[in-house]
Amino acid sequence: MGIAITGLGKCLPEKVVTNDDISDLVDTDHNWIIERTGIEQRHIATTESGTDLACAAAEEALRDAGANKDEIRLVLVATATPDDIVPITAAQVKRRMGLENAVAFDLNAACTGFMYALWTAEALMKNGAMPGANTVAIGKALVIGVERLSRITNWQERTSCILFGDGAGAAVLENQPRERGILATYVKNYDDHKGVLTCGKEYRDIPFWEDEEKTQLLALRGKAVFRFAVNSIEEVTDEVLKMAGLTLDDIDWFVPHQANGRIMEAAAQKMNQPIEKFQISINKSANVSAASIPMALYDLEKTGKIRKGDKIAVMGFGGGLCAAAAIIEW
Amino acid sequence: MGIAITGLGKCLPEKVVTNDDISDLVDTDHNWIIERTGIEQRHIATTESGTDLACAAAEEALRDAGANKDEIRLVLVATATPDDIVPITAAQVKRRMGLENAVAFDLNAACTGFMYALWTAEALMKNGAMPGANTVAIGKALVIGVERLSRITNWQERTSCILFGDGAGAAVLENQPRERGILATYVKNYDDHKGVLTCGKEYRDIPFWEDEEKTQLLALRGKAVFRFAVNSIEEVTDEVLKMAGLTLDDIDWFVPHQANGRIMEAAAQKMNQPIEKFQISINKSANVSAASIPMALYDLEKTGKIRKGDKIAVMGFGGGLCAAAAIIEW
Repeated sequence: MGIAITGLGKCLPEKVVTNDDISDLVDTDHNWIIERTGIEQRHIATTESGTDLACAAAEEALRDAGANKDEIRLVLVATATPDDIVPITAAQVKRRMGLENAVAFDLNAACTGFMYALWTAEALMKNGAMPGANTVAIGKALVIGVERLSRITNWQERTSCILFGDGAGAAVLENQPRERGILATYVKNYDDHKGVLTCGKEYRDIPFWEDEEKTQLLALRGKAVFRFAVNSIEEVTDEVLKMAGLTLDDIDWFVPHQANGRIMEAAAQKMNQPIEKFQISINKSANVSAASIPMALYDLEKTGKIRKGDKIAVMGFGGGLCAAAAIIEW
Repeated sequence: MGIAITGLGKCLPEKVVTNDDISDLVDTDHNWIIERTGIEQRHIATTESGTDLACAAAEEALRDAGANKDEIRLVLVATATPDDIVPITAAQVKRRMGLENAVAFDLNAACTGFMYALWTAEALMKNGAMPGANTVAIGKALVIGVERLSRITNWQERTSCILFGDGAGAAVLENQPRERGILATYVKNYDDHKGVLTCGKEYRDIPFWEDEEKTQLLALRGKAVFRFAVNSIEEVTDEVLKMAGLTLDDIDWFVPHQANGRIMEAAAQKMNQPIEKFQISINKSANVSAASIPMALYDLEKTGKIRKGDKIAVMGFGGGLCAAAAIIEW
């Protein structure tokens, strides 16, 4: 019994912010950014809410899968930057799209959120489908990654503000007994002892206590994050391949989280795999955290390069620190 | 094969805020609050972070279960009020407690979060335990509900600020092949078409767009929420009983989300069940959203009234709108 991805969708905000635009804000330039990150531009949400982006990506994924709205029994939204505290984004997507039969909730594992959501959706779908299952069977699910990182980006900090963008990616999952689909998933949390990737959260003061001041802005220690990223990609990929009984050379396509072009190059080199097998989407849309993997998977699929039966390794890593990899037979 | 709750923990912040304390802030009084809500007091976090509360509750639950830290393979934190955007609360709990082998992530379904987390943890634990499973087996898991609602409470609004409190509750789940445990879970999302329960989210302005002003404060339409609560409790309980092949009279204890004493009384009446079968914890700790159900379950268990084999109906409802019920054989 397999849980397969049968549809993909993507939505980017209309506004494109180029490296030159950023060099108007902070002391940087296009070539410096390209060389260190591989990023040429990013999309930044202006009029679009996260829910707008998520719904547009999800609608496209449904069309792509040929799935009806009433078939969707689960909406899982991975996001670190929801529009509101209440209602959760998944509930807003459910209501806006009219997904009458869906259970909906949000999940947060920062940049690795989509991978955790995929793992969770698979378990919920399989559990409901088991003989004697005590939960309602979920035949089709929507898994969405959406972020408006521009709202927690420190636009005064030149080493980090160049990295992030906004967007949404969505996948329709289907329980297809005769297909392979997701072959294995490996999820691992590491401890961020040194605070290499942080973003505080501001709340209003309350009458009974003056809270410590925090800034709701992303901060990262680039070198430490780079090291963690390259090492964790290799580790989780290695583990998931063992689970699937495969080797690196069996993999046709690698779809890593799009955090930095240099991380992907270093990972390819470390794993002794040609960079041509890696999907690179970061140049056009930067790092969009939980949205980056479904967006990159979409980009790969739309090139027409994937053949039926291809094996795809999807790898996530990021704040927490979290990391995960899955092998999908297409 | 059953997923059983084998340990419970609870942590309330030290500071108690009485109804008289609140009448110093807004035009209200103790008797008015008691009569309309059943709430005598609430605990409000001052020096305690959400992570502090979550860790204290989780440590107690581990001791209660006699579980070792290295056995915990999953930490699921349900919260609408995390301390930080990055790292997620579950990652902070994992690191602080030294849960070396745990996968950790946050989940948000507002007041019903703990129920969604229970449902998710069960699926992840069962999926990993299936023959030929493609995920690592999770034998023991920690499911935590934690909130600092005081930080999103509108302390100028007398009909809502009386309702909320802070705290954490935790449960250890174990995969026990020979025990019954969770017999059935039913989860349902309703649509909040009229915005009866909302809380915006403030972000800083960005250079490219001036965001609309939002206030990061909870607002609710009392009567509509009351109606939704009573109706949804009945519906999800009815559905979960059907799944478990049981009737209301088979249930020994009802543990509803502690939103308002009047909601529980109305639900008991509507379901024709004696209020004595309902766990009431709201008088001492008010509505603590995702933390309220594990806290109430803890309170019930610590009375010593639960006997082995008792059937407990746990029912959640809240913002989203979300609702869920589970039947647990103790």
